[in-house]
Order: sequence, then C-alpha cells, then structure tokens
Amino acid sequence: DAKKDDIINKSQQKSQQKGQEKVVTEIDIEELGDSEAFCRCWRSKKFPYCDGSHNNHNKETGDNVGPLCLSKKSGSS
Amino acid sequence: DAKKDDIINKSQQKSQQKGQEKVVTEIDIEELGDSEAFCRCWRSKKFPYCDGSHNNHNKETGDNVGPLCLSKKSGSS
Ligand code: FES
Ligand code: FES
Repeated sequence: DAKKDDIINKSQQKSQQKGQEKVVTEIDIEELGDSEAFCRCWRSKKFPYCDGSHNNHNKETGDNVGPLCLSKKSGSS
Repeated sequence: DAKKDDIINKSQQKSQQKGQEKVVTEIDIEELGDSEAFCRCWRSKKFPYCDGSHNNHNKETGDNVGPLCLSKKSGSS
C-alpha cells in the first residue's frame, strides 16, 4: 500500500535535490574530519550534514529519526 | 503544518528501533571498511546499512532518496 505520504525527500529538500532522480551522496573516508554527523531526516539546511533539524521534525510528527555519527574513537596524533 | 504523514521511521523500522526516542547511530571511522553505504530511507533490513530498499520505496512513492556512500578513494596498501 504505497502512499504519497511516505515521501521523505521530494517535498522537503532544496530545489537542486528535488530535481535529482535519486539523491546519493559520495564521501571520501579519508577526507572525513574527526567527528561528523550525517542527516537521515532530509530536513537539514546543511544536507548531507546534520544541523539538528531532526529534533523539530520529531517533535512535530512524533517520529524518532536521528543522524549517523562518525568519529575517530582513538585519538591519532 | 506538521502531519503524521511526515513520519519517516516510526512505522517503518523494526520494533527495537520503534521503541527508541531517537535513533542515533554511532560509528567509529577507523572501523569502516573500504566502502560502506548507509541507509537514509529507513527501509533497509540491514539498517543502518543500505540494502537497496530505497529503490522500492522510490518506485512506490515517487520519492528520490538514496544512501550515503563512504569509500576510500585512494588505495592504501
Ligand atoms: S538534521 Fe537530519 S538527522 Fe539531524
Ligand atoms: S536501503 Fe535505505 S537508502 Fe538504501
């Protein structure tokens, strides 16, 4: 039972991404900083990075989504 | 105009994640493989990893979401 209401991105993201058939983000692991948070709610103004917008989304809708957080656990110096 | 219909995760993911207030995934950068794809559609059976379920979701709903793909561009051997 597919519903228009299941759409996550099409009506949420900026026009550049709306025009894409599929929004795939490619990131080089070796260019990651020590700590990065990536958006999985599609509401971030800094997409593909998380800007905390998931909190408003969750509050407004009763959803429970959050970011993917990558970090270097061991300090490398 | 918040709508119940904007919910991404609550009705999609397995019961373990449904019970969480906010699903945040923490990953150690140094434990990443050479190439990883992380789910941003919340439909994957291998969540937090992408299993291609975004394709069905997009087809069924007209959405345009896709994964976050991390890879080591430079070979390191
Ligand atoms: S802003 Fe989208 S997950 Fe944080
Ligand atoms: S299965 Fe969710 S983005 Fe691929």
